[in-house]
This record gives sequence, structure tokens and C-alpha cells, in this order.
Amino acid sequence: MSLKVYLSGEIHTDWREQIIDGAQGLDVTFSSPVTDHGASDDCGVAILGAEPNKYWHDHKGAMVNAIRTRKGISDADVVVVRFGDKYKQWNAAFDAGYAAALGKSIIVLHGPDHQHALKEVDAAALAVAEAPAQVVEILRYVLTGVLPG
Amino acid sequence: MSLKVYLSGEIHTDWREQIIDGAQGLDVTFSSPVTDHGASDDCGVAILGAEPNKYWHDHKGAMVNAIRTRKGISDADVVVVRFGDKYKQWNAAFDAGYAAALGKSIIVLHGPDHQHALKEVDAAALAVAEAPAQVVEILRYVLTGVLPG
Amino acid sequence: MSLKVYLSGEIHTDWREQIIDGAQGLDVTFSSPVTDHGASDDCGVAILGAEPNKYWHDHKGAMVNAIRTRKGISDADVVVVRFGDKYKQWNAAFDAGYAAALGKSIIVLHGPDHQHALKEVDAAALAVAEAPAQVVEILRYVLTGVLPG
Amino acid sequence: MSLKVYLSGEIHTDWREQIIDGAQGLDVTFSSPVTDHGASDDCGVAILGAEPNKYWHDHKGAMVNAIRTRKGISDADVVVVRFGDKYKQWNAAFDAGYAAALGKSIIVLHGPDHQHALKEVDAAALAVAEAPAQVVEILRYVLTGVLPG
Amino acid sequence: MSLKVYLSGEIHTDWREQIIDGAQGLDVTFSSPVTDHGASDDCGVAILGAEPNKYWHDHKGAMVNAIRTRKGISDADVVVVRFGDKYKQWNAAFDAGYAAALGKSIIVLHGPDHQHALKEVDAAALAVAEAPAQVVEILRYVLTGVLPG
Amino acid sequence: MSLKVYLSGEIHTDWREQIIDGAQGLDVTFSSPVTDHGASDDCGVAILGAEPNKYWHDHKGAMVNAIRTRKGISDADVVVVRFGDKYKQWNAAFDAGYAAALGKSIIVLHGPDHQHALKEVDAAALAVAEAPAQVVEILRYVLTGVLPG
Amino acid sequence: MSLKVYLSGEIHTDWREQIIDGAQGLDVTFSSPVTDHGASDDCGVAILGAEPNKYWHDHKGAMVNAIRTRKGISDADVVVVRFGDKYKQWNAAFDAGYAAALGKSIIVLHGPDHQHALKEVDAAALAVAEAPAQVVEILRYVLTGVLPG
Amino acid sequence: MSLKVYLSGEIHTDWREQIIDGAQGLDVTFSSPVTDHGASDDCGVAILGAEPNKYWHDHKGAMVNAIRTRKGISDADVVVVRFGDKYKQWNAAFDAGYAAALGKSIIVLHGPDHQHALKEVDAAALAVAEAPAQVVEILRYVLTGVLPG
Repeated sequence: MSLKVYLSGEIHTDWREQIIDGAQGLDVTFSSPVTDHGASDDCGVAILGAEPNKYWHDHKGAMVNAIRTRKGISDADVVVVRFGDKYKQWNAAFDAGYAAALGKSIIVLHGPDHQHALKEVDAAALAVAEAPAQVVEILRYVLTGVLPG
Repeated sequence: MSLKVYLSGEIHTDWREQIIDGAQGLDVTFSSPVTDHGASDDCGVAILGAEPNKYWHDHKGAMVNAIRTRKGISDADVVVVRFGDKYKQWNAAFDAGYAAALGKSIIVLHGPDHQHALKEVDAAALAVAEAPAQVVEILRYVLTGVLPG
Repeated sequence: MSLKVYLSGEIHTDWREQIIDGAQGLDVTFSSPVTDHGASDDCGVAILGAEPNKYWHDHKGAMVNAIRTRKGISDADVVVVRFGDKYKQWNAAFDAGYAAALGKSIIVLHGPDHQHALKEVDAAALAVAEAPAQVVEILRYVLTGVLPG
Repeated sequence: MSLKVYLSGEIHTDWREQIIDGAQGLDVTFSSPVTDHGASDDCGVAILGAEPNKYWHDHKGAMVNAIRTRKGISDADVVVVRFGDKYKQWNAAFDAGYAAALGKSIIVLHGPDHQHALKEVDAAALAVAEAPAQVVEILRYVLTGVLPG
Repeated sequence: MSLKVYLSGEIHTDWREQIIDGAQGLDVTFSSPVTDHGASDDCGVAILGAEPNKYWHDHKGAMVNAIRTRKGISDADVVVVRFGDKYKQWNAAFDAGYAAALGKSIIVLHGPDHQHALKEVDAAALAVAEAPAQVVEILRYVLTGVLPG
Repeated sequence: MSLKVYLSGEIHTDWREQIIDGAQGLDVTFSSPVTDHGASDDCGVAILGAEPNKYWHDHKGAMVNAIRTRKGISDADVVVVRFGDKYKQWNAAFDAGYAAALGKSIIVLHGPDHQHALKEVDAAALAVAEAPAQVVEILRYVLTGVLPG
Repeated sequence: MSLKVYLSGEIHTDWREQIIDGAQGLDVTFSSPVTDHGASDDCGVAILGAEPNKYWHDHKGAMVNAIRTRKGISDADVVVVRFGDKYKQWNAAFDAGYAAALGKSIIVLHGPDHQHALKEVDAAALAVAEAPAQVVEILRYVLTGVLPG
Repeated sequence: MSLKVYLSGEIHTDWREQIIDGAQGLDVTFSSPVTDHGASDDCGVAILGAEPNKYWHDHKGAMVNAIRTRKGISDADVVVVRFGDKYKQWNAAFDAGYAAALGKSIIVLHGPDHQHALKEVDAAALAVAEAPAQVVEILRYVLTGVLPG
């Protein structure tokens, strides 16, 4: 068994690297959105032409990014959705809903402060973790049956 | 043509009533989540037994509410998702993602302050409105072909 | 909102009647398998001809019953699966798996003794209840937003 | 033609090994749930944190195991479901129902004592075998057209 | 519970009438192909213009008839496929395959002479009957739980 | 049997009225896009706010119209696509492709001049007609088995 | 582009070999049912135990063969269905219907004598050929754009 | 991440070559319809026999070409649809509709003159470009996160 894992959500900490590093040696293929904030915001206008209206500026970028995120989620066996401490992060919750409707296995990753606000998202998950290392342990167990320690 | 419309999101203002009132006379059937905040939070434990751990308290409630929200979204032709001024509202974004993956027609309703943070959600919508009256006008136009004033 | 509810599982107690009686006045349509044990076992051979081999006797009946159970589950919004105290009840667990793969909202109904053995079934459910009255309360809450007492 | 086969059910005898050994040389890829009983029961709390309540202890484990079992069944061409002599084995019947709703080819493997109790599960199968060697012969025939001896 | 039943196959005997008559009082809605042989053969050219080539003559008719047969099969809960004594009846077998791939409950109706030649079709059915009265009895049992006699 | 028919394409002649009038007495429910050209072009900006850029002006309108056209096509049993003598009519061909991928029964309606240019669209249809009266005759035959004359 | 092609139908002439030989050098993977008539008829009882009743003898074999045929058709891009001069060949027509409902590209291969009887099957096809060499030419054209001669 | 890209539409300029050349080094697999105009028009009759009626001549060819185009679109992650300056190009719009209903990511490629006439097609796209180089830049960004310049 091999797993395709999509890493959705927060782009300001190194949680993706922690998971990818921790999962070395496991039969996992990771994908993720573009995590360069500036490129992600401006990709639409940089390629397809400037927009004086900020709404359409954002819209063009969000549409281009959707080519990547939809592909990543659609191909994934497991979607990990990370909610960090800051920002609205509505795109992360949107990805979780999208993945849920497609029947993907979802792992939500967030600190205890967000438990109440994320209860509907957590209710769609097969695991709710607080640390990237726990996600790695889940992937290891799912693929090999081996538990930590 | 008749439309089934699900009204997702904010529960602290009267936007649902404004839309339902405005749409009187149109062939629309509305549904929505339970909007009694206390009942929505406690439904799981009130029916299925208390939980000392707040996480499971929330979880049981979110699962019971999911029976209603999934039914409402799955049956809908149009899903209106309202983002208000306060709170995280991740459940609204989750519903939008869920509706998008099911191919529903989505109308997002929010003020201009949220444009950048909601760009991925807006990108999945067929209309982005700022006022409930605009949602009514869309429903009227879609059903009757008549534009406002 | 109205709900179609399929009542799967145990046929030796009156749990179905308790739920149907309790739900009077709610906008619910119930369906269920044939609960006459003898008719259910013999329907195949009674209609399509006797079989000397007990396996094919059972097989013909199970196939005819599947016309009804698949229709009931496929049409349902909510599938309630009841596990009683006796018998193997593998058909109930089969129905639960079938409903889960179709994305139905599942309510499992069983006593505390079965918790460990049913953990995989419960994990696919949106609610796990011990008494028929709790199922009624869930249906009432989902349809009306009103909690008990 | 190659086949992906998921081996669901009993974990206390060596039936999986018999099938995998017997199928050597055939173009088959096998997958199965975690068959280490202790790890399977405790994976949830071992990775995601202890639960004082046995129900949630079991629940967390069942959810994590579902990541593997859903992947295995969804990817499979053939799902073999084995019912042994002991235990409730509701998870096996659940997997059979899940596989049936996804349109998988199902082979059920059980002794003659269970025929009546498993008639609904058998009715969803393309083959009902009593011995692992028969499953191997089916796989060989399906892939090569060669019958035993 | 109500059932939508599509009656496919032989058009030269009164088996449809026998089933429809026998099922009076049951909550069943029947549909069927156009059973006027001449109209069925000529509908394409009669409406859309003559074709000198018999192949295209037949083709135009078969396409127009497909509007009705696909609608009938797609909407049906149960598809009854009747094979009579004469003719190739490949359209009946085609309908059975079409219905099988859509997951419809299939009842095949044929005499004992055709058993070997129809074994693949029968293998996709939930019931194989020899007489229209048996089909009626199945429908009555599925809807009411009452067996004959 | 009743039919839901969506009438897509040309909005400058009275072909829809001819079909609807001709089909009086048949069990058909018709739907169609908004055929008021001005309203259709301007609905987006009229409801959701002006756009100085003509592209976004058009875009907002096309998105709002999509709420209606997707609903109409998704609900339809039969999609009639009319190509007139003038204009690019790419939206008609788009609707035909959309309907084809959903497995709808398609009737294309166009004059002989367009045969070569429409060959891919015609190849996805169950009938290709030149006159609205032929569409009516098809609907009558499909519903009643009666041929013209 | 590569193609997976399933070769369904007649097993008494060498049409499969002609196609496979002719397609050498093309990026095509072929699959087919078991074409050893005796093995195909007896596989069920040879592996799973004798049946005194010929119906169940046939049934067990048809079910085991279905594991292979459903896999072959489900995986295929193109399904070629061959009708020979003899026998009922209802399984070929069943396969055609099954493939049609799954949206597969179908090529029917038969002589001119069967045109009228196969008109419904032909109407579901993208090509109707008389000779295996034509099927090869279609595959070559589809993959390379090169026409014969 | 790798991408499968189908290039639909205009066959009289070198836009496909520009994209394929520009994308060298990226993990993209391209497919496209047969772009030899003569072969595409005549493939049906060249392989399956002449037709005196031009309509059926075209029809046979369009059906054979559909084997390739449906395969290409169904397998694609991204469908690029190019509208040139000339011809009706209804097959391009048909492909766009087909791709939209399958949920494919669509990039439309056309000059500013066609904006109004293509507004419904553009509304189904995630990007609307004017030059092949922009399509290449989108593919590069989606796969690598790198923007031009």
C-alpha cells in the first residue's frame, strides 16, 4: 500500500517540512498548494494580465491556484488540513469540506484553542492531531501497522 | 422551475429572514442549519448523554447537526453561504467546500472587508453578494428572468 | 425538510414500533425490511420454487429480500441500524457498511455490551444511541431544532 | 490483467498467509487491515492521546484504522471477506456491505455452519468458498483461465 | 414504499398485461418500451425523414427509441427482462446489461430451455422467474411482506 | 412516463413556443434559459454592481445565468439544442457537451447548412431534426408510442 | 495515448487473434473473457463444489466468470463486442449494455445478416464493423491519426 | 505532481506546438484530437465503408473521432480549449461543455474579439488566456509554483 497525501492549510510555519521529513522511508507521495504567499496571491495577474480592481486581482489568482489544489485533493487518499494560530484560514476549511464531500480520509491538525470553532471540521475527520509528528505516526501506522515507541 | 436553497453560515443576524421574506411569492424552498446556538452546541449530549470532556461534547453535537446540514446541502440546488463580521466561521467555509465538490451553485454573501480572505471561497461561487436583497434578486431572476426595477 | 428513514437490523423486539410511534407528527417516512422471520426466510422458494439444498433455499430468499432492502437504503436519508442481544446479525452490519459507502447518515442503536465489537460500525455513524427514544429525539431535533425536555 | 485483492475479516488464523502463499506467481497485489490485534485496538490512543472512556478509546482507534481499510477496499478489484468460528466479526460484515455498495467483486470465505446467518452477505458475493485454497484457485482461474488439476 | 418497474424484452405475448393486471392494488408504476412493432421499427424515418439504406433506417429508429428506454431503465427500481421463445432478443440482453451496470434490481423471466444460454444474464439478477405471476408475487412480497397462499 | 425537457440555444426565433404549443396535452415539463437578450447580458451587473471592464460585465452575467442553465440541464431527461442561422452560438454547443457528459438524451435542431460544422454535436445526439414540429413528434412518440399521420 | 481494449463475445472463431496480431506495435492492452468453453462452463463447480442441479452449476460458473468480465470491462477504454453466426450470444449483448451504461466507447463487430436484430446494440456504438481488420484500423487511427492505405 | 493536458479546438495554427514546446521540462503529458483535417473528416468512411449521403459520411467520422476525444478529455486534469479566428468551432465549445460537466480544470484560449460570444464558455474556466505562452506559464506555475520573470 502506498498513500497520496495532500497537505492543506497554514503556510507560515514549517509543519509541512516536519511531516515530509518524518515520513521519509514511508511509501507516501505528498502534494500541497503553492506556499509562496506572494506568488500565490499574484499568479493570476502575473500571467493573465493586471486588474485594477483588487477583487478581480484576487479572483484570477484564486482560480489559477484552484487548478493545483483541486488536482491535489482529487488525487489524494488522505488530506491533512492544518489550522495555525493566525488569520481566517477559510481556504483550509473550504478544502476540508471539499475533501469530505469527495469521501477522502481527513486528518485535521490544530491546537486545543481551536477545538470549539473547528468542531464541524473535526467531525468530518478520521483523526484530529495537535502535532505534525502525530500525523507522521498515523501515516506510519496506516502503511506498516507499527505504532510509535 | 423551482429551487431548493440552503442557507449556510452566520446565525447572529437576521439575513435568513430577509431572504426568506424577500423571496415570498417565488417558487423556492429554503432549508438551513439549526440556528439556535445553544441547542446546536448541546444537541449531542442532551440526547445521547453527557461528556465530561469538552471535545467529545462538541463532537457529539457536531455529528448530530451533520445529519441536518448534509441533507440540506445535498438536496439543494443553490447554497448561499453567509460570512458575518465576527467569529471564525469555519463551518461556513467547510459547507462551501462541501457544496462545491457536489457541484452545487454557490452564492457567497459577505462584506467587502472579507474579500481577500475569502478569495478561494468566492472563486467557487457563481455569485458574490454583499446584501441579502441581492440574493433575493438573483433568485427572482433565475426563476422568472425579471431584473430589479 | 422531511426525512426518509430506513430501520435496519433486529426483528425480535418492538424497537421499530417505538420509533415510529414516537415520531408521529414529524415529517418522516419510514421503511424497513420484511420483519416476518418466516416469510423473510422462505420468500425465495415460496415464489420461485423449492430447493432441496438449504444453501440455495436461503440464497433465493436473500436475493428477493435484497430488492426491498437495497431500495430502502438507497432512498433513505438516515439509516438506523439496531443490534439486539442475540444472534449474529451480520445482515445489520452489512447494511451499515452498504449505507456508509453510499454516504448515508447512520444512527447505530445498541446496548453498552456491544461497544467494543461494534467499534468499526459506530465509527461510521453520526450518532450512537442506546434507546429507541433517543433516535426519536434525534429525528425531532434534526427536523425541528427542538431538544428534549 | 492484474488484480488488487483486499483480505478482510478474521485475524486469528493464517488464512491470509495461505492465500498469499498460494497465489505466488500470479499477478495479484494483496492488501489487508492491520492484523496485530493489540495495535489495531490501541492505535488511536497510542498516537493521539489517551481516553479514560473506553468508548472513545475504541472510537479513536477505529477511525485511524478506517484510513487503511477504506483505502484498501476502494482500491481493490476483489474483496475477500473471511468469517471465522469465533467472535461477532461485525467489522467483516460491514466491510462486505461497504464493498458491495462500491460494486466490488466479493468472495466470502466461511465454514458451512455460518451459511444461514451469512445468507445476506453471501447473496452479495460472486463466490462463496470454504477454504483459502479455493480462493487461490479462483484468482488463478480469473487471471489465467486455468482450472485446478 | 412504492416501486417503479420497467418491463423490458419480448413484445409478442401478453406477459406485460399479466403483470400489470396482477399487480393492481400494489403501489407500482410500470413503464416499458413502445411495443407496437411497426411503430418501433419505423419511428426514426417516420419523424426525421426516409433513409434508402436499411441500416440507417434502423439506426434512426433505434436512437429515437433509446430516449424512452434509457429514461425507463434509469428511473426504475426494478427492471424485469423477458426472453420469449423466438427471435434473437439482443435488445433484451442489452437492457439487462445496462440495468446491471446502473445497479438496478433485475428480475429475469424466461422458460427453462434458455437457462444455459442466459446464465450470464441470470447471474446479474436478484430473481429468475418462469411465469409472469411469479413476478407479481415478488412485487407483492417486496412491497407488503405477504407471500402467496 | 413524463418528461422534463430543456430547450437550449437560439433565442431570436419562436422555436420554443412552437414546441411548447405543439406539445400541449403531453406530459412534458419544459425549462429554458432566460431568453430576454438584454436581461441575460446585464443580469450580473444589474444585481451585483457595475463593472467598467466589459469582460467582467459579461462574466458576472454568465455566472448568474449558469445557476439557471445548470439546474435546467441537470434536471432534464431530454435536452433540445437549437442552432439558428446567425451568431456563433457557442453557448448552445457548450450546453450540448455538458448534457452529453451527463448522459442526457439530446435532440439537435438545425438546418441542413450546418450539418458539417455540427457533426460532432450531432454525433452525441439521439435525434437530429430540422423543424420544431419534428421535436414535438419525437416527444409524442416517446411518451405515447403514437407516430404522426 | 494508450488504449485498454476488452474483446467481448464470440469464442469459436479467431477474431481476437486477428485483432491482437494486427495491432502489434500499437500501444494497446487487450483483455478478454476466458475463451476455453469447457473451463468457462465448469469453473464454478470445479473450484467451489459440484451441483446436481444444472441451473446452479451454470450459475456458479457465471458468477466466477463475472469477476473477470466486470474487471475487464470496467478497466477498458474501448469494448469490442463480436456477434458470430451461431448461438444466442446473449452474454455479448449483455456486455454491450453493461459497457454502454458505464460510458465506454463501443465497437460492434458483426456480419450484415444481424443488422436489424442488433440495431439497439449498434445504436450504442461509436463504430460498427464487419471485419476484425477494421477494428485494427480504428485502433490505429485513434492512437496515431493514420488511415489505412 | 504531474499533469495530463488535453488540447482541444482550432487545428489551423501551431498553438499546440507552441504549448508543447514551451512546456518542455515540465511533468506534463499532452493529448489532442487528430489534427489532420482530411483524415479527421474521412476516417469513418475510409475504414468502415463509403456513404453516399454526406450526413452519414460525416457522422461515421465524428463517431470514430469521439473514441479519441472522449478518452483524451476523460483522462485529462486540464483541458485547454482554443478558439481561432475562423469557422464555427462548435466542436471546441462542445468539448468545453463536456469537460465542464466532468469537473475538469478548463483553460480557454482566444483573442479579445470573441470575449462576448464566449462568455458562457469562459465562465466555466479557471483561466482565460490570449496566448499559448500564457498557458505554458500557467502549467509551469501549477506544477512548480514559479511565476514568469
